Amino acid sequence: MKRLEDYIESIYDFPKKGVIFRDVTSLLADKDGLKLAIDKIQSLIASEEFDVVVAPESRGFLFGMPIAYNLNKSFVPVRKKGKLPRETISQDYDLEYGTATLQMHSDSIKPGQKVIIIDDLIATGGTIDAIVKMVSKLGGDVVGIYALIELVDLKAREKLNGINLKSCITYKGE
Amino acid sequence: MKRLEDYIESIYDFPKKGVIFRDVTSLLADKDGLKLAIDKIQSLIASEEFDVVVAPESRGFLFGMPIAYNLNKSFVPVRKKGKLPRETISQDYDLEYGTATLQMHSDSIKPGQKVIIIDDLIATGGTIDAIVKMVSKLGGDVVGIYALIELVDLKAREKLNGINLKSCITYKGE
Repeated sequence: MKRLEDYIESIYDFPKKGVIFRDVTSLLADKDGLKLAIDKIQSLIASEEFDVVVAPESRGFLFGMPIAYNLNKSFVPVRKKGKLPRETISQDYDLEYGTATLQMHSDSIKPGQKVIIIDDLIATGGTIDAIVKMVSKLGGDVVGIYALIELVDLKAREKLNGINLKSCITYKGE
Repeated sequence: MKRLEDYIESIYDFPKKGVIFRDVTSLLADKDGLKLAIDKIQSLIASEEFDVVVAPESRGFLFGMPIAYNLNKSFVPVRKKGKLPRETISQDYDLEYGTATLQMHSDSIKPGQKVIIIDDLIATGGTIDAIVKMVSKLGGDVVGIYALIELVDLKAREKLNGINLKSCITYKGE
């Protein structure tokens, strides 16, 4: 039987030389891979009590929405600047060169709501950290972070002040 | 009981003056709205026989993935230029000013596969038409197009050469 990691293709030198890109499209293109991925992330969430799934554009949407549906929770998208039509809050985060801005609707999280964040891949944790800050500004509480893949050498956990982070597949030394 | 359309907020003059933006984030932010939306789209698909769900970045991902999971099918993303790491095919499509380019992985559809396309909203049908062309180039067969919302006055159906198109909510006269 194929393991989850067997469905992930590794693409060398994308999007630039020296980077190994972990491609989830090969996983999703196989119905058994797709089902296994969603089920595995969901099994990490297990008995966590929460109200809302938050996920960033656009690969986070792929994993966040099936799980929100399956667990009968609501879903809040985090988008790049200018995409959300109503009043937003913004958070800058560092890219390798320069910064980018993420946004959430100002009314998307109600004070006291428990939030989990789902993404496909956690690298430096910059995106996740920006989302945690926005959820916190809106009065929500991030109780867990779940990802299919974690690049452990990039040390996202050090950014996250002890928030529970679980991933299905880890890559090291790259 | 709330109807599906009651969850959709209409935002006037976004992204520019004169446009009414139909906002699905208000629907997804309510767990009952989210469940109703996925279940309704899925009920339109009913007994359609197909192999693959194809959906465009990024709001198409929100609706396409839960349905691919629920129906135990594979999922193929359509992305903006430069986002997919392996060999792609491209299709230009017209925007109001100029053109944009969508891409799919060249190996994402196998010859003879039956495909359904899922998106959040169908307006002029330009995106859908570009996807139909790419699927066809790869030897696949689009057997149905499903959307949460259809702006019927923009006449997407005229572009689609009779391919079966079903939507849950229609808006007219705007």
